[in-house]
Amino acid sequence: MTAKKVRTAITPIREENFSEWYQSVINGAEMAENSVVRGCMVIRPWGFGIWETMQKVLDERIKKTGHENAYFPLLIPKSFFQKEADHIEGFATECAVVTHTKLENQDGTLVPAGKLEEEYIIRPTSEMIIGKSFSDWVHSYRDLPLKINQWANVMRWEMRTRMFLRTSEFLWQEGHTAHETEQEAREETEIMLQEYKKFLENYLAIPVLEGEKTPEETFPGAENTYTVEAMMQDKKALQAGTSHYLGQNFAKSLEIKFQSRNETEEFAYTTSWGVSTRLIGGLIMTHSDDDGLVLPPKIAPQHIVILPFLSRKNSNPDADTAVLEKCKTLQNRLEELSFSSDTIDISVKIDSSEKSGKNWDWVRKGIPLRIALGERDIEKGGFMLSRRDRPANEKEFVSFEDIERIPEILEEMQNTLFEKAQKFQKENITEISSLDDLKSHFLEKNSENSPAGFVICYADKEINEEREQLLKELKITARCIPYAYNKKDEQGNPENSESKCIFSGKTTTTKIVYARAY
Amino acid sequence: MTAKKVRTAITPIREENFSEWYQSVINGAEMAENSVVRGCMVIRPWGFGIWETMQKVLDERIKKTGHENAYFPLLIPKSFFQKEADHIEGFATECAVVTHTKLENQDGTLVPAGKLEEEYIIRPTSEMIIGKSFSDWVHSYRDLPLKINQWANVMRWEMRTRMFLRTSEFLWQEGHTAHETEQEAREETEIMLQEYKKFLENYLAIPVLEGEKTPEETFPGAENTYTVEAMMQDKKALQAGTSHYLGQNFAKSLEIKFQSRNETEEFAYTTSWGVSTRLIGGLIMTHSDDDGLVLPPKIAPQHIVILPFLSRKNSNPDADTAVLEKCKTLQNRLEELSFSSDTIDISVKIDSSEKSGKNWDWVRKGIPLRIALGERDIEKGGFMLSRRDRPANEKEFVSFEDIERIPEILEEMQNTLFEKAQKFQKENITEISSLDDLKSHFLEKNSENSPAGFVICYADKEINEEREQLLKELKITARCIPYAYNKKDEQGNPENSESKCIFSGKTTTTKIVYARAY
Repeated sequence: MTAKKVRTAITPIREENFSEWYQSVINGAEMAENSVVRGCMVIRPWGFGIWETMQKVLDERIKKTGHENAYFPLLIPKSFFQKEADHIEGFATECAVVTHTKLENQDGTLVPAGKLEEEYIIRPTSEMIIGKSFSDWVHSYRDLPLKINQWANVMRWEMRTRMFLRTSEFLWQEGHTAHETEQEAREETEIMLQEYKKFLENYLAIPVLEGEKTPEETFPGAENTYTVEAMMQDKKALQAGTSHYLGQNFAKSLEIKFQSRNETEEFAYTTSWGVSTRLIGGLIMTHSDDDGLVLPPKIAPQHIVILPFLSRKNSNPDADTAVLEKCKTLQNRLEELSFSSDTIDISVKIDSSEKSGKNWDWVRKGIPLRIALGERDIEKGGFMLSRRDRPANEKEFVSFEDIERIPEILEEMQNTLFEKAQKFQKENITEISSLDDLKSHFLEKNSENSPAGFVICYADKEINEEREQLLKELKITARCIPYAYNKKDEQGNPENSESKCIFSGKTTTTKIVYARAY
Repeated sequence: MTAKKVRTAITPIREENFSEWYQSVINGAEMAENSVVRGCMVIRPWGFGIWETMQKVLDERIKKTGHENAYFPLLIPKSFFQKEADHIEGFATECAVVTHTKLENQDGTLVPAGKLEEEYIIRPTSEMIIGKSFSDWVHSYRDLPLKINQWANVMRWEMRTRMFLRTSEFLWQEGHTAHETEQEAREETEIMLQEYKKFLENYLAIPVLEGEKTPEETFPGAENTYTVEAMMQDKKALQAGTSHYLGQNFAKSLEIKFQSRNETEEFAYTTSWGVSTRLIGGLIMTHSDDDGLVLPPKIAPQHIVILPFLSRKNSNPDADTAVLEKCKTLQNRLEELSFSSDTIDISVKIDSSEKSGKNWDWVRKGIPLRIALGERDIEKGGFMLSRRDRPANEKEFVSFEDIERIPEILEEMQNTLFEKAQKFQKENITEISSLDDLKSHFLEKNSENSPAGFVICYADKEINEEREQLLKELKITARCIPYAYNKKDEQGNPENSESKCIFSGKTTTTKIVYARAY
């Protein structure tokens, strides 16, 4: 006999099989599904609604920080990929290649025809094609800074795909900027990294460690890559957004040149930064539970669903009409409310569909609040309220006069989700001080379903074959050199005392975070 | 000696060469430019800002009419194109074909590798791939109607391209719906056609003739196509948006089946409808003048630019500081205002750049209002206002107390632009009653730069080789069977009296509009 299991809306549950649970949450919430195109997904309305909310918030911040949106071609001529050696190496092995421009009917079969002289690549990222435009637009220091953002689909022909986390086609925003000086470009890189951190923490309620990537994890062609790393509930790391300082590398290969204030010809300093639909995967793995998706209210496409309690087979039509009218009135009153200092209007849906089990459908979709309303509730002057951050069967009677409490409840849910995720993150960061500790930490605890969280240790940035081999054996990677563990004093000197790199034994003040990662 | 020419910001002017003028307006406003990818354009921030405003308005209406956004794969497997014979014929001759999944370095040259078993087509439209999902989602009449919209890039390998009007890649929204009954699907087709009409007339200030397409102009695979046709300043027609009733054609080829209320298995009735970045081309050719772009205020990315009048080489820094501060104050006050019944917040930019000729840059960009503000204006307690719908050198002094007039002025500009376009359209629609009239009308007046406008005549819908040949010679096409000239009485009977088709001589009550078209 096994212990009695609590019934959950999602099977398997997290502790049984985290990756199957993840897929079940997506299916249960009707967020996305596989398509007939290898590695590409269909993003269904509920999943796309989350992306739209993300876009809205982020787009506003991108514009407030002085960037303008534009749109560049989907295709990139093959020859462009040969201009930046590191860049091509990073992307050539997985890209969709367009070779023909029509289909011809040959004996009833359609075959490619109209062969192109030069093949095109579907953009895996747009540094090269946007850089080309920059080289046309920038002539003088007066044309700088140039600060552009693009919302687009990109394609990387990944071998192993996983919904939202790694798909052949995904949606993202990619910022591209050009500057007069290194300092200004470095500041831009940092500003956008901090924007990502704020967005993740304040809206998605996902706490992150921000920091610099080590050389082996740097974007192909970049001088420095900065990242925000989040911890999922299985304690693995998710790279949630990156901001790259590209130095003059791309400017040199694409001739982004300008006449300086001193009338000399200089190459511009460029940056790029992006986040993608991958964030939706991060959202799922940070907050969801064994009943399905849990959404921070500030990023939910809708905040409240009202479920009218109607008579069986419409046996009492008058009462049903009264209930539906009351639902409509309540919806209107709730939609006049807003939260998060008036920046978010409360969005309310009435689900009067005939489907059975619709309460559980909405639990699985992670809508923050569910309201049940029937004849008896109206008599008692209120409704039954269920919160998605509480057990699914928990209900509370709220009288109609008290609906002003709703914005507070949403605010509180947002904060609770963040605090819970933050506590989890902190509990699963371990500082260690030797190579043996690192090995025993990951070898003993690092099973598929329960990796050992984040480990912080003194380490220099250099990578060699031996270290590479060891990390591979432990199935971990350097996630970043986190700011929080590498603070500097007012003079810019490291606050960390000197110690020895656990790998090389050389003296260093740098601390690096290691973890298994998506 | 030729007559003295008025200096204009755009050359050539409209009457010299309309199509070169069109291109110059785009260049002058920095809206878009050609890219290194054949037939694809780069949409620059000012052009993209217009598209964003369009998206915002239209997306809200699409949602208000009960549709949800989703996202489907960019690529379509080749075999899908073989499922609908008419559809494939319409698109196979111009499409980008993906055949490989990587590039390999062979002796220093990158060559396509990783050949696909089945090729993919970059979507030219998404009926097939969205229809596939519909077939997975629809099981019962309870799952209907299904009302989905997608904002996406699509690709058609056009032979002759023209910025915004016909480009290999373009941006659009495509609505796709499935219904239980023919009637409901037909109503949906009509609802969205009317949404397009309202959007074009109320926001873009472009008057349209809406109506049904004749069979030869119907979308490949559709039963009926409805269109909104606009008249450009060169009197040519622009198909600005279409709404298709697809009957059960796509449902049958993709197996979109459901169990009906009578428990029989039925095929769904589907629709699709779309508008694209082509609308930006229509906007340019409807309103712009020989000084460049003219934007209806309701669709302008920004409404007002403030141009501070500063001292030469900053010779009077104190005065300059005072001017810039006043500009900022004025910007803040103006941005508190809104127009169009409070639905549009006024957006104001201060351009304090050092560039010479920036007043004319903003004229060419078509920003609705320009404000010049210098030391003297401040002393006089106001600023100089220039309206884009008046001659570029016209200015009016407005005192600071009168800024409440600004929303009224914007509203008035919006109406004036629409009325002007409507008057032009009406003046260039001619009703004719014989084939000879049609011939002489277009042969005599139909030069490249001044086509003869829209012609309305009695004609049946049938097309035969002879008629096709004649239309080709006259360089015209049937644009649509316009509602406005084919009214029905309350019983649904045609109000037009019976007459003879000018082509076939057969009795008909149908009137068709013919024109040259983009």
